Amino acid sequence: MTVETRAHVYPASGTTAAPRHARIAVLGASGYSGQEFARLALGHPGVTRLQLVSRELAGQPAERLLVGFAERVAGGTGGVATGGAAARAELPAIAGLDAARAAVAAGDVDTVVSCLPHGAWRELAPGFEAAAGGRAEFRVVDLSGDHRASDHGAGDHRDAAADYVYGLPEAFRAAIPTASRVANPGCYPTAAALALLPALELGWIAGPVTISAVSGVSGAGRAAALRTSFVERDGGAELYKAGTVHQHVAEMCMHLGRIAGSAIDVGFAPQIVPMARGILLVANAPLAIQCTPEQAHAAFASRYTGEPFVRVLPAGSWPETRAVAHSNRCDVAVTTMHEGRHLLVSAAIDNLVKGAAGQALQNLNLMLGWPEMTALPVDGVPW
Amino acid sequence: MTVETRAHVYPASGTTAAPRHARIAVLGASGYSGQEFARLALGHPGVTRLQLVSRELAGQPAERLLVGFAERVAGGTGGVATGGAAARAELPAIAGLDAARAAVAAGDVDTVVSCLPHGAWRELAPGFEAAAGGRAEFRVVDLSGDHRASDHGAGDHRDAAADYVYGLPEAFRAAIPTASRVANPGCYPTAAALALLPALELGWIAGPVTISAVSGVSGAGRAAALRTSFVERDGGAELYKAGTVHQHVAEMCMHLGRIAGSAIDVGFAPQIVPMARGILLVANAPLAIQCTPEQAHAAFASRYTGEPFVRVLPAGSWPETRAVAHSNRCDVAVTTMHEGRHLLVSAAIDNLVKGAAGQALQNLNLMLGWPEMTALPVDGVPW
Amino acid sequence: MTVETRAHVYPASGTTAAPRHARIAVLGASGYSGQEFARLALGHPGVTRLQLVSRELAGQPAERLLVGFAERVAGGTGGVATGGAAARAELPAIAGLDAARAAVAAGDVDTVVSCLPHGAWRELAPGFEAAAGGRAEFRVVDLSGDHRASDHGAGDHRDAAADYVYGLPEAFRAAIPTASRVANPGCYPTAAALALLPALELGWIAGPVTISAVSGVSGAGRAAALRTSFVERDGGAELYKAGTVHQHVAEMCMHLGRIAGSAIDVGFAPQIVPMARGILLVANAPLAIQCTPEQAHAAFASRYTGEPFVRVLPAGSWPETRAVAHSNRCDVAVTTMHEGRHLLVSAAIDNLVKGAAGQALQNLNLMLGWPEMTALPVDGVPW
Amino acid sequence: MTVETRAHVYPASGTTAAPRHARIAVLGASGYSGQEFARLALGHPGVTRLQLVSRELAGQPAERLLVGFAERVAGGTGGVATGGAAARAELPAIAGLDAARAAVAAGDVDTVVSCLPHGAWRELAPGFEAAAGGRAEFRVVDLSGDHRASDHGAGDHRDAAADYVYGLPEAFRAAIPTASRVANPGCYPTAAALALLPALELGWIAGPVTISAVSGVSGAGRAAALRTSFVERDGGAELYKAGTVHQHVAEMCMHLGRIAGSAIDVGFAPQIVPMARGILLVANAPLAIQCTPEQAHAAFASRYTGEPFVRVLPAGSWPETRAVAHSNRCDVAVTTMHEGRHLLVSAAIDNLVKGAAGQALQNLNLMLGWPEMTALPVDGVPW
Repeated sequence: MTVETRAHVYPASGTTAAPRHARIAVLGASGYSGQEFARLALGHPGVTRLQLVSRELAGQPAERLLVGFAERVAGGTGGVATGGAAARAELPAIAGLDAARAAVAAGDVDTVVSCLPHGAWRELAPGFEAAAGGRAEFRVVDLSGDHRASDHGAGDHRDAAADYVYGLPEAFRAAIPTASRVANPGCYPTAAALALLPALELGWIAGPVTISAVSGVSGAGRAAALRTSFVERDGGAELYKAGTVHQHVAEMCMHLGRIAGSAIDVGFAPQIVPMARGILLVANAPLAIQCTPEQAHAAFASRYTGEPFVRVLPAGSWPETRAVAHSNRCDVAVTTMHEGRHLLVSAAIDNLVKGAAGQALQNLNLMLGWPEMTALPVDGVPW
Repeated sequence: MTVETRAHVYPASGTTAAPRHARIAVLGASGYSGQEFARLALGHPGVTRLQLVSRELAGQPAERLLVGFAERVAGGTGGVATGGAAARAELPAIAGLDAARAAVAAGDVDTVVSCLPHGAWRELAPGFEAAAGGRAEFRVVDLSGDHRASDHGAGDHRDAAADYVYGLPEAFRAAIPTASRVANPGCYPTAAALALLPALELGWIAGPVTISAVSGVSGAGRAAALRTSFVERDGGAELYKAGTVHQHVAEMCMHLGRIAGSAIDVGFAPQIVPMARGILLVANAPLAIQCTPEQAHAAFASRYTGEPFVRVLPAGSWPETRAVAHSNRCDVAVTTMHEGRHLLVSAAIDNLVKGAAGQALQNLNLMLGWPEMTALPVDGVPW
Repeated sequence: MTVETRAHVYPASGTTAAPRHARIAVLGASGYSGQEFARLALGHPGVTRLQLVSRELAGQPAERLLVGFAERVAGGTGGVATGGAAARAELPAIAGLDAARAAVAAGDVDTVVSCLPHGAWRELAPGFEAAAGGRAEFRVVDLSGDHRASDHGAGDHRDAAADYVYGLPEAFRAAIPTASRVANPGCYPTAAALALLPALELGWIAGPVTISAVSGVSGAGRAAALRTSFVERDGGAELYKAGTVHQHVAEMCMHLGRIAGSAIDVGFAPQIVPMARGILLVANAPLAIQCTPEQAHAAFASRYTGEPFVRVLPAGSWPETRAVAHSNRCDVAVTTMHEGRHLLVSAAIDNLVKGAAGQALQNLNLMLGWPEMTALPVDGVPW
Repeated sequence: MTVETRAHVYPASGTTAAPRHARIAVLGASGYSGQEFARLALGHPGVTRLQLVSRELAGQPAERLLVGFAERVAGGTGGVATGGAAARAELPAIAGLDAARAAVAAGDVDTVVSCLPHGAWRELAPGFEAAAGGRAEFRVVDLSGDHRASDHGAGDHRDAAADYVYGLPEAFRAAIPTASRVANPGCYPTAAALALLPALELGWIAGPVTISAVSGVSGAGRAAALRTSFVERDGGAELYKAGTVHQHVAEMCMHLGRIAGSAIDVGFAPQIVPMARGILLVANAPLAIQCTPEQAHAAFASRYTGEPFVRVLPAGSWPETRAVAHSNRCDVAVTTMHEGRHLLVSAAIDNLVKGAAGQALQNLNLMLGWPEMTALPVDGVPW
């Protein structure tokens, strides 16, 4: 058996031009992804304006969103000078959607990062696109699932507003720097793709991929619900939408298939466990080849060499979510079983960072010409 | 396709004789399984003596083990009258191993329930067997893994002391009433067997079974360890011993294979999540048949009809550990995928009850001729 | 200094008559207190009918409320026979308020246990009282705060429907057997009163009592709210309504004052911590006497001798909520400081049991003439 | 009543000289405080060398300590370039105590930050002091309790090695820049002092201060112990060492008294709750004056104006630990009760940051002449 890896260029070509600045409106800033994005963006040297947008909280001070921030220091003098980014000191009151649209129309905002629930951006997009008036520098990163299955092969961009590039840099980096509309991958699909990517690219997968994943409760969003209450979640693990019914199955089938260059069947068993953040995913599939654990590890390590946000664990080590908490990193491990004819892979990410806000900023870095790691933590905060 | 289920007789035949009483020594009573067994046994009408045995705590009052018990009520008058079992009021000080062996020799103890770590009972058994002097009524239930792979087909009992019956009643009920030595199944293997049992019996499994399971931290035992400390576990999920290296893989291969009547390959991805108790297991395998989700559900429901401790969830519902917390019940769900050619099953148990102490008492009920459900809760305590 | 304790009679006098049965409607059965009461009542030999009432869930099967219960066993044959109480097998569908009122009017229900939010029973009571038509055997236990401050000295009951006895048996046991309307104490006030009772009765308290208490999240009720969501609560402790503004301060002032026989100032610092259930309370106050820790312990132990649900911990031991989890017990500890001139007391209870549903059943036992401990666990379930 | 505040100068005078660099050995780097300090120090521009020292882990790679760090990236190329500080790339293997002492003797290390358990530094100090040979630039920050009660009035430094300044900048800032030995305050005393400081300075406290505080489990250190295991802590709160017996009582009495200028009696009720980090403290005391809540708030706000790491919450808001998680900030709130004659104050800190490692770095910033906030986060990370 020969294990080969395709050549990868990192950083992406075409970044020789000076990086552009961004004036960003974060829609849905009251949710977990929105808050996480705002925190990361406040540390980014290229983010010169950050407009926090929330329908429910419009008009309220920004500190209402950024729980833990210190703007309320007695006397108003403390705290805010730290943190670095110029944008920080100017945080205005939370804006409504109309104000955001007006800012786009006025050219005060050139980048929309939509952290709204599924379906919302699809509805709002026409208004914002009209406000942008077809300006070439208008950019959108949509964190919902609305446009994740609309990628037309990463190349045919006649109507930028309608054509979203699937923003998974480790798989499709080349398409992102030239994109102006990016669909940010779902949290589960991100972990699944990074766990399986080398095997898919190598054509190893010979049958259905079955994916089991546990997620922290923040994955269910920030709306008040009995299902996500402390008492209902503490102390227990629950399986839900098992089989092929979860909304992420179609997204996984499409993009795992794109990576493999052939159709991939996906079965999925998502589980919610009592932790705030993190996804730990395990996938298995029959192999088209026979491959020792060492060969599989070597292939994965080779494929991910130079990837700034993927760490292939040493053989015998397995991922844990705390090692990647609050970071944009994905930890991956691999082995084979049953005389090398069955693959077992695992990945851990922070669902709010690499699974949402961090990956959105990673995509923006690529779109704007900034080094891909700018303002993105690679180290986890384990406790 | 025809879905058939084999006939099952419940309760086990041969229970017409009057149930016997038991005078029990619980070895390793300071661990989670030991404490759980003691709590359950204190409510059992047939347990006339309960000796708590712990090397480390010998000589100390029983309340040291049974955290939360009220014996220390001011004045010594309160509390203990409740709870029912006569044994309760007589709880002596914690005994050492020598005292336990002496009690066996004196005929004061006729049943040893060993909740010791793996390897310990194997070492202690000769001494206890010698003390029992070959008495027919001497019984052992060993909760460790020492004898789980020694079952010689459930029938050939020339040397009772050496021959342990694998005590999984739902699969091997007939062998238990006549057994005097029982190896209590591991927590993961219990959940795996109950999740897969109908499919295995029906000969449906056509390839490797891959099992993912999350476990509460009590599954790692009660010894002090950094790995099980609150700070190291809170807020994170971790995969460990993935592939075929976990000690439970051999146990699962052996007994899943016995149920199927043919060799079963098992891959296993155990994960530890931040909850105290509970196992949520998901297994998948290619099918030898083509089977709709409804047919699979019907087969599982049929097979488990009358099983007191297995609940097959309605189609579209999936297990959660809280529903079975503190109970001896196992919740099971099933579906098929990929045009009915791939199986996805799930089971939830309380690892300390159905996965350990409760199943031990269930086995004892069968061995002693008590109704199988005696003193065993079937309802969960969700919060 | 002389430490004296008043004489207490336990069990309450007047229990020589045969205990009465109860046919109970539980209003608000979907909340945590309602579910907890239903679970306890299902194990009570004197509860011959249990009607679960919920506005939102009327018409749905009872299993929807009793999470973890096994009625859904495949084939409908399993599970439900266990658990003992006859009422269990007959659990009807969840009723609406109209059905509950009709059952009262028809004489099918003689006892209302209201687990509704504050204000609700006050509004519903006239309709239910009218339905009861002044029948002497009609009883109400209200778990809300509506009537906790209406106790007119425990004796002047000209209008039973308007006059609620404050149901804290350890302080006011004598009034309960003859009461037909009982206001069940709040969770914090229960812990506060039991922590301070001996000192209050002895006239020791010489100044403001300051109470700090941590509560599990179930104390905030079961309505969906961002504030009680897992992500917002996990990993953090929060102080709220500190000072004299919490709704329980008036209740504590009134009844601590009744116990002391003089006005008591109360300051209160309630805190919410990431656990599902439990209250751990610490109170301090200046002393009117000088008292060693040993003398204080002796006085507390003496006062609580014979109380079935209060345990005074040995000197040097301090309460923890897990020791009383799922039990109706209160653990109390006491010391003095600053040369014996300042009191520090602590109490731990399960807020859903002794702080709500368990105490309601304790009150019902007294009202019905059953032994006070009937169907009430005294041992905790620590994990 | 007149509320006055003393004048405070911030930043500390004497910082006009260029800030000095530090080559630091972190003793006890395997503990929570040690790891936290290492993480913070890696982001400090003035830390040019960071030697991680651990008896148990000497010789192992640094990644063994810094859980979550990405040095293990496949191929060794990724990850480590981020994070900024030059020190990062040079992290050597973990050193033993002998190597640390040798580095001091060789002048390669000029600063010891001891995160060892209580008693350890006192024993090691003579050897390290001898190695330092009386060099003026040798500095020690000791995070244990060994020298917290040895402060001789913050001024009389004839023998630097024997005389430790109590490093609580908000109370004793002036003494720190000229100190070469600093005793870092305990976590509880830090929260207590910051909660009470304005009231103490103003001479408001008229009687015993009673302090209740809940702490995350990391406060108990990182040694494996049953008492800090996940199963034993999850779901419960526990009071321990209540009264005047906790080792922090003497530290609080001493330094609260120094702040007040008169003796202060302290009663203390420390509690452990199921969270990894954070302290939420509530203190109450009788007042020498009569003071409305508004007046108290104004006095606190005035006193803390300009303090970079203290936020006085708006009236009616109360602290929560999550708002200060992972930050060096302390949130404080205050009210009065009982006609303004009783004080209730509260403070929240991260016990590992402001309560340990962050405050140590804050002290080092003052000692080295760096801006006090350098490398110290002021914003919390709430989930």
